[in-house]
Amino acid sequence: MSIREEALHMHKINQGKLSTGIKVEVKNAKDLSLAYSPGVAEPCKDIYEKPETVYDYTIKGNTVAVVSNGTAVLGLGNIGAEAAMPVMEGKSVLFKSFAGVDAFPICLNTEDPDKIVETVKLMEPTFGGVNLEDIAAPHCFEIEERLKKETSIPIFHDDQHGTAIVTLAGLVNALKLTGKRFKDIKVVANGAGAAGIAIIKLLSSYGVRNVIMCDSRGAIYEGRPEGMNPVKEEVAKFTNLSRQEGQLADVIKGADVFIGVSAAGALTKEMVQTMNADSIIFAMANPVPEIMPEEAKQAGARVIGTGRSDFPNQVNNVLAFPGIFRGALDVRATHINEDMKRAAVEAIAGLISENELNADYVIPGPFDPRVAPAVAAAVAKTAMETGVARQKVDADEVRERTVQLARIGKSE
Amino acid sequence: MSIREEALHMHKINQGKLSTGIKVEVKNAKDLSLAYSPGVAEPCKDIYEKPETVYDYTIKGNTVAVVSNGTAVLGLGNIGAEAAMPVMEGKSVLFKSFAGVDAFPICLNTEDPDKIVETVKLMEPTFGGVNLEDIAAPHCFEIEERLKKETSIPIFHDDQHGTAIVTLAGLVNALKLTGKRFKDIKVVANGAGAAGIAIIKLLSSYGVRNVIMCDSRGAIYEGRPEGMNPVKEEVAKFTNLSRQEGQLADVIKGADVFIGVSAAGALTKEMVQTMNADSIIFAMANPVPEIMPEEAKQAGARVIGTGRSDFPNQVNNVLAFPGIFRGALDVRATHINEDMKRAAVEAIAGLISENELNADYVIPGPFDPRVAPAVAAAVAKTAMETGVARQKVDADEVRERTVQLARIGKSE
Repeated sequence: MSIREEALHMHKINQGKLSTGIKVEVKNAKDLSLAYSPGVAEPCKDIYEKPETVYDYTIKGNTVAVVSNGTAVLGLGNIGAEAAMPVMEGKSVLFKSFAGVDAFPICLNTEDPDKIVETVKLMEPTFGGVNLEDIAAPHCFEIEERLKKETSIPIFHDDQHGTAIVTLAGLVNALKLTGKRFKDIKVVANGAGAAGIAIIKLLSSYGVRNVIMCDSRGAIYEGRPEGMNPVKEEVAKFTNLSRQEGQLADVIKGADVFIGVSAAGALTKEMVQTMNADSIIFAMANPVPEIMPEEAKQAGARVIGTGRSDFPNQVNNVLAFPGIFRGALDVRATHINEDMKRAAVEAIAGLISENELNADYVIPGPFDPRVAPAVAAAVAKTAMETGVARQKVDADEVRERTVQLARIGKSE
Repeated sequence: MSIREEALHMHKINQGKLSTGIKVEVKNAKDLSLAYSPGVAEPCKDIYEKPETVYDYTIKGNTVAVVSNGTAVLGLGNIGAEAAMPVMEGKSVLFKSFAGVDAFPICLNTEDPDKIVETVKLMEPTFGGVNLEDIAAPHCFEIEERLKKETSIPIFHDDQHGTAIVTLAGLVNALKLTGKRFKDIKVVANGAGAAGIAIIKLLSSYGVRNVIMCDSRGAIYEGRPEGMNPVKEEVAKFTNLSRQEGQLADVIKGADVFIGVSAAGALTKEMVQTMNADSIIFAMANPVPEIMPEEAKQAGARVIGTGRSDFPNQVNNVLAFPGIFRGALDVRATHINEDMKRAAVEAIAGLISENELNADYVIPGPFDPRVAPAVAAAVAKTAMETGVARQKVDADEVRERTVQLARIGKSE
């Protein structure tokens, strides 16, 4: 069978990939009297009196909504809410498999950001966190920003921050390998979509000063007369401070790092040859990267990461989101802040020891069972330290619990 | 432990009652490539091309949203969306336990019916049906009516129709026992809330001509000068055609059937004594019925049902909603229509043979494992016959599948 046939078959025989599970059997009158009427009134009354006990008595504290409107799905583009369901179900399966988080897909039939914001706010009683997914830029930025302000549960647009965190983890290790420092490097990011912008923001918080972002018109700079929008205006304020103009081929000269979240073939061997020695390339266009790893290597690149599982250093969001939400839920966090994101970066990067570190191994594999527990513990600890935790827990217990809850790395 | 302590303990040790389950393991790169990228793109593309395949490839076809805003919860009243979570989770557990339906609680933080309608419409891509629950009258009527018109998935307000269906099932059998006919009986319903109104509407569709509904001001009749609202105006158009005025004690005289969805003690022995011979009483106030069964019996009632598990003839919605949605989902129904409701009534009533039928057994017990399969098969069959099914199936297969999926009536 082709992968198409195999994927369709697997989805069809199971009628999707997710189900509900019950933690409490209801097989007789006694069961019913506890799980439903009249016993269920007791936790209801307690929550009414003390709203924070909703985390004690209900699924909220382990439950994440995977919210999408299907406007920017994988490589498929705007396919709508129904057609996005398989992806959101798949994401939910990954949450459960990698970190024991109960996630549920909520596909919303609208392209209006106001309606998405309102719907998520209305659903806040049910969910302990919200993973926004595959919502097109620039609406995704506005939706996330507003929800972060207007709710008190973690809101996390994975296409932005998941990708940024894993890329940064790879970059942390690549810099160790090459002996370069964040404050000295020149970074060129190609592609001004959700992921690209999140990456350069996270880079800034790591002290990178010299970043140039390119879109299809070339370098973005303050005052560029064409092809700007509010998000790019914001980007222009903290990047490309010398206002370099020109195409990618022009600004890539002398760069140490290339971050590609753009399209197949956007980076040529010739361009790589103009980069600094020991250059680092994250070519994350899917399924065909901006440059193939062997070509980049031939042109002098030292470390190359892609989005693909068949090359070394796969930038796979599954390294980040399960552990991040696991840690956030375990402390009943109100937000996922920048410090928590950096804690996730360090936790992922830190799993590769100096002995193991090499150009083909700057990012742990997606099925490394240490990743989600390490991320969860680091995120929980940082949430407590930065005042966004509703509950104190022992970070080591978070790690251990994540090991228990995860299904990967275990035989049945 | 008291039931309060036991219920709180059970909810707390499990952190709620529901979880997500996964139908597909993701433990290696091959699994990931089918359940997520890149394989997941294949069902997405198919659904984009042919929207109806969403039922083949996703959870939609087995998934029901249990939607509430917590404005009319059990006997607790308006406790809000968060405090309603334990009930909606419990309901979801019952859906799974009794009929293998994957139900998920969606508690909405609003009392605005427009917002509830809009939210449910936006979520339609994810769900194959919506069970509205514990939403206060009169908004519950408007919300259900609008959603039935504006979506193409089954919308079912269980507080109305579940109660009505089970009550009617009991009444069908009680009439068999007493030899009375629907078209001849006089029915007095006390309580003009959601359940009461649904019951008298369903009664009408059974050919009952003589119905009087009472609220706290007494009999409702067309042109009553006080305490009317649009819903009661509608009720007045098809009930109490002789415009009897007066209190319950006045209009109950000569009645064959009393339907109580009101408050403890609303029906006295004296009132029952004025009813016709072989009177039938459904006293469903919770936890204390309108009249206690032994008192009603002493006053001459022949058949008495209540909402309680410790008396005979428990009117428990769990006899209806799991099988109704099971049947509706299995034919991918667009609606749950009146014929399907009556099919559910007949299926429930029909499980008690003439030999078994007696005054203490007009309604099957809530854990009778034959109920959901019988209801599902009847509902599926009727959906196909009345043109609201997207898919043809064999009703016997629906019955058999429900037996397989249900968890009740089975040892582990």
